[in-house]
Amino acid sequence: MAVTRRELFKVSAAALVAGVVAPVSIAADDPLPSWNDGPAKKAILDFVHSTTDRMSSKFVPDAERIATFDQDGTLWVEHPMYTQVVYCFDRVPEVVKAKPELANVEPFKTVLSGDRAAIAKLTMDDLLKILGATLTGMSVDEFEAETRHWLETARDPRWKRPYTELTYVPMTEVLTFMRAKGYKTYIVTGGGQDFVRQYSEKTYGIPPEQVVCTAGGTKYGYDKNGRPFLTKEANLLLNDNNAGKPEGIHMMIGRRPYAAFGNSTGDQQMLEYTKAGNGERLAMIILHDDADREYAYGPAQGLPDTKVGTFTQALYDEAKSKGWVVISMKNDWRRVLS
Amino acid sequence: MAVTRRELFKVSAAALVAGVVAPVSIAADDPLPSWNDGPAKKAILDFVHSTTDRMSSKFVPDAERIATFDQDGTLWVEHPMYTQVVYCFDRVPEVVKAKPELANVEPFKTVLSGDRAAIAKLTMDDLLKILGATLTGMSVDEFEAETRHWLETARDPRWKRPYTELTYVPMTEVLTFMRAKGYKTYIVTGGGQDFVRQYSEKTYGIPPEQVVCTAGGTKYGYDKNGRPFLTKEANLLLNDNNAGKPEGIHMMIGRRPYAAFGNSTGDQQMLEYTKAGNGERLAMIILHDDADREYAYGPAQGLPDTKVGTFTQALYDEAKSKGWVVISMKNDWRRVLS
Repeated sequence: MAVTRRELFKVSAAALVAGVVAPVSIAADDPLPSWNDGPAKKAILDFVHSTTDRMSSKFVPDAERIATFDQDGTLWVEHPMYTQVVYCFDRVPEVVKAKPELANVEPFKTVLSGDRAAIAKLTMDDLLKILGATLTGMSVDEFEAETRHWLETARDPRWKRPYTELTYVPMTEVLTFMRAKGYKTYIVTGGGQDFVRQYSEKTYGIPPEQVVCTAGGTKYGYDKNGRPFLTKEANLLLNDNNAGKPEGIHMMIGRRPYAAFGNSTGDQQMLEYTKAGNGERLAMIILHDDADREYAYGPAQGLPDTKVGTFTQALYDEAKSKGWVVISMKNDWRRVLS
Repeated sequence: MAVTRRELFKVSAAALVAGVVAPVSIAADDPLPSWNDGPAKKAILDFVHSTTDRMSSKFVPDAERIATFDQDGTLWVEHPMYTQVVYCFDRVPEVVKAKPELANVEPFKTVLSGDRAAIAKLTMDDLLKILGATLTGMSVDEFEAETRHWLETARDPRWKRPYTELTYVPMTEVLTFMRAKGYKTYIVTGGGQDFVRQYSEKTYGIPPEQVVCTAGGTKYGYDKNGRPFLTKEANLLLNDNNAGKPEGIHMMIGRRPYAAFGNSTGDQQMLEYTKAGNGERLAMIILHDDADREYAYGPAQGLPDTKVGTFTQALYDEAKSKGWVVISMKNDWRRVLS
């Protein structure tokens, strides 16, 4: 490590003399170059170094290095609407094409109307009907093909880019850094498991088997040629929000994480559960306070509560009292999106 | 590889000259030394070599190399009673100590009596009551401590050894060989997830997060000091038998296996689902036909049906018609237990 650093320094010094690069305050071997120096960056570096240093009293064996990451609002943009909900709304015309009788049935009628004010007023029951119609009843293979097509073609209205490009660069640096140090990184999110698994590997370097999400059941059956296939069913096996996160972690991973990252009340129990483990544990929570580069929302710090990714005052207080580290998007991140 | 083989040969030749080791027909670099030459061993070697050779048309990328193994009767002895069921019966006295009113309630009264003939007549409903009383209602931490203690102290009556030592050497060789070739190995078994995870890493080298089993829910709560913990609940999230195996694989792994190993009708759908995938797939099924070294049971081949790990004639016929490879414990295994 010392040799590498010295060599890098030599290269940097030579480049400076040659006037090739501007002097910057970040070290050439900084694993988190998109983070500003501060308590959040320091907390990550200190945690990873102390838990992976064999000489440290905080050392964690390789097999136990588990880090869990909420997705919406933690790894990528969740505002103004969760990406998967956008997908479900976008799928409604296709669903109605297959079942024309739904065209005059609520809430499908309202979604088809395109009337944004009316759509914004849909209830949770309405939303569940839309999720049910667009996420269940088809084979797993059909769903995967539809999802892949949508991910390739849909664009976020503000950035005009595919949703899978709206990831936070500082957080992808954390994923890469922790994996390089032997941590197994998991997504633990309220989104749908079959949906997130379509892009988790390409977008985050996280394979399907390390994706823990809200999951419905499937049903095994045979097609007319006797070939087996799975159909997506309406029964809910795991609601991976709130208390469902530690419950889902126990079911899918079977080990308590050493580090967890979230941004809302939906992550509260995962952060509590992680931090309550023995030895050194890291719990971090992202505050969306950057209206210029992303969005600013959440009642903590007096920002508006949009109901998406709620960061309440109570959560903020718990973070402070339990030693969770708050990440200020505005102050801690040098860059936000790529 | 050539160098290694030559070097090993030199060592072997020198040892032979010195009279240290007896000449054996197995190659020094044989990854499956406890297997006799024959179609079963050849099927494993051919499958692994062709799917991990970049020049082969059957090559499978590293990330997609998933192999799933049933446990009871496939990786370790299941006869005459599943190990976890033995655990549950053994726990009954402790449960009754904590709740003395159960001492005169069936089926606990019968289990406490020690009357083997009466115990053998217990119904499935009785068994479910015993499983419920011994596997749910306690915290995950308490359950893990109880399980660990039992695994250390309990002994199989025939071999007088801990149950975790009753693993099949040829199958642990397959696990080791496939992992060395980049396969992620999973246990996919009808046993209880929290139980199997207590020994999977030490016994098979399979970490908790690669254990897919029958799983009940847990409930998140806080102790009197505000510390969060999980309680084992009675609701069933996954019945990991029969169709539940591919359904569980989809939920927990999210990829179709390239290889699957089983021994009973409970593995039928996992084997079908695996074999029905595109490209090269391996499905193998173990026939318990070795009364001397282990047990002989199953109606296929005219052996008695013990209801444990049923290997029916229909399953045998399906294996033959669909290209699954039958492993004869008697003929294909040079050794059985360590």
